[in-house]
Amino acid sequence: MEKFEINILGCGAALPTPKRLSSSQVVNIREKLFMLDCAEGIQMALRKSRIAFPKIQAVFLTHLHGDHVFGLIGMLSTFGLLGRIQDLHIYGPHDLQRLFQPQIDYFCADSPFRIILHEIDTTTAQVIYEDRSVTISTLPLSHRVPCCGYLFCEKPTPRHIRRDMIDYYHIPTSQINNIKAGMDWTTEDGTLIPNDRLTTPPDPVRSYAYCTDTAYRPSLADLLQDVTCLYHEATFTSEHALLAKKTHHSTATQAAQIALASHAHQLILGHFSSRYPSEAPLLQEAQTLFPNTLLAEDGMKLRL
Amino acid sequence: MEKFEINILGCGAALPTPKRLSSSQVVNIREKLFMLDCAEGIQMALRKSRIAFPKIQAVFLTHLHGDHVFGLIGMLSTFGLLGRIQDLHIYGPHDLQRLFQPQIDYFCADSPFRIILHEIDTTTAQVIYEDRSVTISTLPLSHRVPCCGYLFCEKPTPRHIRRDMIDYYHIPTSQINNIKAGMDWTTEDGTLIPNDRLTTPPDPVRSYAYCTDTAYRPSLADLLQDVTCLYHEATFTSEHALLAKKTHHSTATQAAQIALASHAHQLILGHFSSRYPSEAPLLQEAQTLFPNTLLAEDGMKLRL
Repeated sequence: MEKFEINILGCGAALPTPKRLSSSQVVNIREKLFMLDCAEGIQMALRKSRIAFPKIQAVFLTHLHGDHVFGLIGMLSTFGLLGRIQDLHIYGPHDLQRLFQPQIDYFCADSPFRIILHEIDTTTAQVIYEDRSVTISTLPLSHRVPCCGYLFCEKPTPRHIRRDMIDYYHIPTSQINNIKAGMDWTTEDGTLIPNDRLTTPPDPVRSYAYCTDTAYRPSLADLLQDVTCLYHEATFTSEHALLAKKTHHSTATQAAQIALASHAHQLILGHFSSRYPSEAPLLQEAQTLFPNTLLAEDGMKLRL
Repeated sequence: MEKFEINILGCGAALPTPKRLSSSQVVNIREKLFMLDCAEGIQMALRKSRIAFPKIQAVFLTHLHGDHVFGLIGMLSTFGLLGRIQDLHIYGPHDLQRLFQPQIDYFCADSPFRIILHEIDTTTAQVIYEDRSVTISTLPLSHRVPCCGYLFCEKPTPRHIRRDMIDYYHIPTSQINNIKAGMDWTTEDGTLIPNDRLTTPPDPVRSYAYCTDTAYRPSLADLLQDVTCLYHEATFTSEHALLAKKTHHSTATQAAQIALASHAHQLILGHFSSRYPSEAPLLQEAQTLFPNTLLAEDGMKLRL
């Protein structure tokens, strides 16, 4: 299977703690790297990780709260000092430009690479990036400021060649790509060999949804049907459901409800309030509803 | 002696490394705390330290290069989340307001404390802060952007009372402050007791100069005469003197020359380029000229 890997660099909430970084991830799809949020300290976390961070093509910011963006300017500046030349695209809500362009112009004035800011509409679900491997779309969320999640959908891969059959029918190399794409084969004596004798089905298409920060938003599930892996914030336990509502965050139960309604294959909880000495109660709460739940951890690597 | 303590939180140069933070210090003068520069990661370093960071009254930025300021907005935001109410004053060169006010207005909108930015003239030596314990002045430096160091001069403390003499002459408590201030005493029979029989001299007045980043600037020594402790950048060894000149930084030898010409009591080298696997050559080089030299270290605490 082609690579589709989630690297969780930070999964803490607003207050950074020595135990964990605030929200930051890197998604690796077939060696293309995409960053999700950019907390203070991210450049150090990247250096400690084994992520080939010069390959990061784009940064997707969910919203302009400090715990999701304060690492940006330092990371950009360091990329410049390290001699990056590849363009870097940064996607984020309205005000991205106003708040960051002056600092970028000043602190990255000698930068050898271009930094391109894209302000996105967080209120609609739309494709904002596409290449031959992946489609990235926004997922409207409900927070105190404009906020959206991001959905990564892998593009279908070709069918797998059955080498034994190719040899048996003496199919020339020039035809392999057509066969992978689903073409049947006609032998010299005119016999039609259906494609499914020559190939096995392609790998299933995988998807990843990054949903933080948000109040419980049932309609989100409509956009996430059959998602392979759902990262959903679970700032609080149900005990603090009122606080969750007030601060526009979710409880672990609510995250599990979204996973359930989405028919997600797996749920990852993150964005933990630093009030909990252990996240075990969050996990327990979610697993009651949705058993295939994991707690995010800084440094966690997940292969879909 | 009253407290006069330097806490070095970071002493690295432009590129942050897992080994050390970029430039950041906290000066504690009689339990008043002043921050010097504010590198990315500072809030985590403050939390790990035993510094009572809510007591930080003011931040003094030498210049607007990322490795000296990228921790500012995160620290301000966290101070707000932690419920700080005391005003915080931030001093820095021209452009401070333009580059930081929009982010402060946005990210610290709900902040329960006031953040007051002061743009200072980095080209003249002038007092910018004064209270009953300390005077803080700017020290013009030579860097690629407007830049100044800061000189902390302790105010003289009163003379020390000789308790035995006070008792012997039955001097009433109401007069103690006058005696400490230098007043003589006349006994009931008209004998004049000179103050130096009643007191011992005050503690010597101490001073601390923070000089980073700067090219070699001989005139700096005129402003630093008899400084107790001089922190001077030493980004490079003399082997890289040309690079130092080109990038407007100093070598360890040049730092020692400033210490020597200033008749400093002690020299601390800092702002080390990450190119050196060990700073021992920098120390050796400076000590040849100025033996009482130390290498700065993250987490170092110096009592003057």
